[in-house]
Amino acid sequence: MSAANFFDLFSMDPSHGSFGQGVLAMFRKNCWYVAAWDHEVTQTPLARTLLCEPVVLFRKQNGEAVALEDRCCHRALPLSMGVVIGDHLQCGYHGLEFDSLGQCVKIPGQDKIPPNAKVKSYPLVERWKWLWIWMGDPELADDSLIPNWWWFDHPEWEIVKGKYLKLACNYQLITDNLLDLSHLAYVHLNTLGTSDISEFPIKTDRESDAVRMTRWILDRPAPPMFQSLGDFDGAVDRWQIVETFSPCLTQIRAGACDAGSCNPDLGEPDIGMHIRSLNAPTPETENSTFYFFGHARDFALGDKDVSGNLFKMVSQTFDEDVVILEAQQKRITAHPDKEFIDINVDAPGIAARRMLARDIEAENK
Amino acid sequence: MSAANFFDLFSMDPSHGSFGQGVLAMFRKNCWYVAAWDHEVTQTPLARTLLCEPVVLFRKQNGEAVALEDRCCHRALPLSMGVVIGDHLQCGYHGLEFDSLGQCVKIPGQDKIPPNAKVKSYPLVERWKWLWIWMGDPELADDSLIPNWWWFDHPEWEIVKGKYLKLACNYQLITDNLLDLSHLAYVHLNTLGTSDISEFPIKTDRESDAVRMTRWILDRPAPPMFQSLGDFDGAVDRWQIVETFSPCLTQIRAGACDAGSCNPDLGEPDIGMHIRSLNAPTPETENSTFYFFGHARDFALGDKDVSGNLFKMVSQTFDEDVVILEAQQKRITAHPDKEFIDINVDAPGIAARRMLARDIEAENK
Amino acid sequence: MSAANFFDLFSMDPSHGSFGQGVLAMFRKNCWYVAAWDHEVTQTPLARTLLCEPVVLFRKQNGEAVALEDRCCHRALPLSMGVVIGDHLQCGYHGLEFDSLGQCVKIPGQDKIPPNAKVKSYPLVERWKWLWIWMGDPELADDSLIPNWWWFDHPEWEIVKGKYLKLACNYQLITDNLLDLSHLAYVHLNTLGTSDISEFPIKTDRESDAVRMTRWILDRPAPPMFQSLGDFDGAVDRWQIVETFSPCLTQIRAGACDAGSCNPDLGEPDIGMHIRSLNAPTPETENSTFYFFGHARDFALGDKDVSGNLFKMVSQTFDEDVVILEAQQKRITAHPDKEFIDINVDAPGIAARRMLARDIEAENK
Ligand code: FES
Ligand code: FES
Ligand code: FES
Repeated sequence: MSAANFFDLFSMDPSHGSFGQGVLAMFRKNCWYVAAWDHEVTQTPLARTLLCEPVVLFRKQNGEAVALEDRCCHRALPLSMGVVIGDHLQCGYHGLEFDSLGQCVKIPGQDKIPPNAKVKSYPLVERWKWLWIWMGDPELADDSLIPNWWWFDHPEWEIVKGKYLKLACNYQLITDNLLDLSHLAYVHLNTLGTSDISEFPIKTDRESDAVRMTRWILDRPAPPMFQSLGDFDGAVDRWQIVETFSPCLTQIRAGACDAGSCNPDLGEPDIGMHIRSLNAPTPETENSTFYFFGHARDFALGDKDVSGNLFKMVSQTFDEDVVILEAQQKRITAHPDKEFIDINVDAPGIAARRMLARDIEAENK
Repeated sequence: MSAANFFDLFSMDPSHGSFGQGVLAMFRKNCWYVAAWDHEVTQTPLARTLLCEPVVLFRKQNGEAVALEDRCCHRALPLSMGVVIGDHLQCGYHGLEFDSLGQCVKIPGQDKIPPNAKVKSYPLVERWKWLWIWMGDPELADDSLIPNWWWFDHPEWEIVKGKYLKLACNYQLITDNLLDLSHLAYVHLNTLGTSDISEFPIKTDRESDAVRMTRWILDRPAPPMFQSLGDFDGAVDRWQIVETFSPCLTQIRAGACDAGSCNPDLGEPDIGMHIRSLNAPTPETENSTFYFFGHARDFALGDKDVSGNLFKMVSQTFDEDVVILEAQQKRITAHPDKEFIDINVDAPGIAARRMLARDIEAENK
Repeated sequence: MSAANFFDLFSMDPSHGSFGQGVLAMFRKNCWYVAAWDHEVTQTPLARTLLCEPVVLFRKQNGEAVALEDRCCHRALPLSMGVVIGDHLQCGYHGLEFDSLGQCVKIPGQDKIPPNAKVKSYPLVERWKWLWIWMGDPELADDSLIPNWWWFDHPEWEIVKGKYLKLACNYQLITDNLLDLSHLAYVHLNTLGTSDISEFPIKTDRESDAVRMTRWILDRPAPPMFQSLGDFDGAVDRWQIVETFSPCLTQIRAGACDAGSCNPDLGEPDIGMHIRSLNAPTPETENSTFYFFGHARDFALGDKDVSGNLFKMVSQTFDEDVVILEAQQKRITAHPDKEFIDINVDAPGIAARRMLARDIEAENK
């Protein structure tokens, strides 16, 4: 597979620096992306570039969050440099005001408002602590397409809100990373990994809008994180079930139970410790990505020490990944036409790329 | 009006990064620009890129200022890295010497000087505390075309020498800013602005080489700057007369008198306080500009406190503008083809763009 | 000579920023370049981009140094981010291991290794304290083509190991600089230069793979460096014999003896003080260069003070050159099509460019 193919058939050129029409095809647009954590959006406008488009986020008086194009239709000032007045966003240059649908509703010093005086508005839904944005055709926005990540909002699960990371890499490299946990043995040896992980084979399932990677690690010592939080006598059985939904939303169900106490063929057991890692990379540009993530667990509920340790371990893990992914992107950008060699564990990642390429192609037909 | 039109018909492409032949058309060349404040140019060479050309400025022994191409004709070292020896500039690499017309007059170690061993020299005139440079055809340089800004050099006016600002934006955005003072109410609310300014209509006059915007604000409280410096009992009448001369020199005549004490139809009155703001943006490149400015007043002459306060207030005002203009340029650069909406107060700015486009087109015929 | 010609006929465009096929022609490939100082390469991998290719350097258990492509064939991670395990380099992402010929010898979790799972390996020879790399066709690598710089490894000569400098300029500007020491009088007046150097003519010899510049400065005071280290009663005769071997390796033989005590026509004399300056610029990219250099002398052997002073003086000299060369490159990059004027002392530099252009053209036929 060449790097050109790696970034698929859809006219993506990792070497170019500006974003014209051709770049639309880099991203799936008619789908939900995470734009921000709920607590990030207030009555002070927040600027964020998503899929190469400048977006401003703010809340109305009733608390409802709004997403508009962050470029005044008058003389292009970012509206995020203005102020929220009631439910309107006022531009900081000449005072034009826009309502939550992006319509200009006031021009200081004149009565007539040209009908085309408006900025784009984006469907925005607040769910599972995140603000989900629809960058494509608003007519098609359907909030039932937001993944059912109920663990983030349920009394029997404790959520550790992550921060978000800003990575200088294409969003698909993050999907690759999450769908191939064999890297735990090399990148995260001191946090999540154990050196024997790659001895256990993976199983790849392809569904219409999802790819699933399953790996069971049987009868082995628990890795440091489980050791410090769990209460195991000896070896454990451990599972990693990673599912990527198009375009790039990935949930990881992981956990451990005493070795021999469950049947892997029946899927994830109810016994033992369970963790949900929810991952939502949102492209800023072709080669930079906002990576939103959080974790939920069904043990040690309310234990702040455990939450703190978990947050620390996860943060450390992700910082280790950032270094890898950004270095990888630099080499790909420098020589975009060089070939890649595929190995067995790449199967899920390749399947996810194919699914995404298919969806982007369908959108651009 | 699209952004492409905003930067007019003359083949300017805000997205490209290098400057070839096509870019000549971005700038009017046969006209005067300010190259530096008088005190900046000494016998130590000063390097400055103007209209994408590297220029070196220095003074001869008799104090006369000289402008040469800042690139040695031998092996391209900036001549500004050399030293002035008498009236000559000596290159810091192999010691070639150039006279004030740019002719090479000495090559160490050889007697014969090739006739084409020379660098470009630019007409340069010192007037109104500024050094005016002519970047186009030297044959056409005519110092009577320098604007008559006598207030900068007259005993009945006190000049507050500005500094200069370096802005990461196209020079025409500065002209827009100065010709539309309605932004005072939003950008400079705490310095120059009053929130009611946009209630008063503007008048636009188009002359062959100038555009004039006039606004009278009648019977209103004086804004903070006038309040602290003037001696008004109650409301004031205030005027702003902004004139832009092609390509981009803008003088502002502003002032205030007791409300009702003058007749706006007769133009600026002799009574009251008078301020002259002189503004000379000089393009460094397409998207970066040296902005020279200064202010003169006919009140509180010799009062250093007033000068200090005025300088402080003006500096603060301009720092507020810099943030706006550079943010505006970023959005324009990112999406150069997006449309703009025009509003009433844009009339003078649009007239100034048309005037400049006409002049650039004429130069490139 | 135009700048385009200055960088010769071989399709080099100083203005482009990325490096595609056409750029191969910028560099001679079938020749030896210095990749690193011997002490820089250990069992911790060292990353270095050479001729626009990413290279990783490390040592095997027996101390032998190895150079491989610094880009994993699996998913492009720089191999320099991995670890050396025995004689193999293990990738830091998914643990692939490569032997010293670049062949993948282990893929965790699978037995079959695809035959094309390999990275490029480069011939590497350790000689004269430096690691010499062959970036072209390995079949043609012949270590007898490494210059015979025996002074760096001989008991009667004291070597002052230089560091290396990273310069933001094309490597050919360094050759120009070394072949035209007339700049000593302007750039290095306080270290190596004397102001009368340009009075003495140079002689240029062109051989098939080398260019030689010879200058004798007769019966003049010694410059500061020789004055402080030598033991001269009065004036000295001084010589500079600079030889550049294709593509860009330059040795300088310099020295001084009492005025009138030798015959310049017979070449460098055995009497007096002798210095060897060995210079090996290695292109990183078109406009950035690793510059390796060192100096040997046949006097004050073992005197650490003299070594320290010499190192300090040479470092200061080179720091002065860096400023010149990088400024020169900036002007060339900004206006690559502008003409240059040649002067007499340019003859050796022009001869070296022609030699290199000829060799690059031959390689690309
Ligand atoms: S740029 Fe927004 S109101 Fe003018
Ligand atoms: S570069 Fe100016 S004298 Fe050589
Ligand atoms: S990138 Fe090197 S092993 Fe995967």
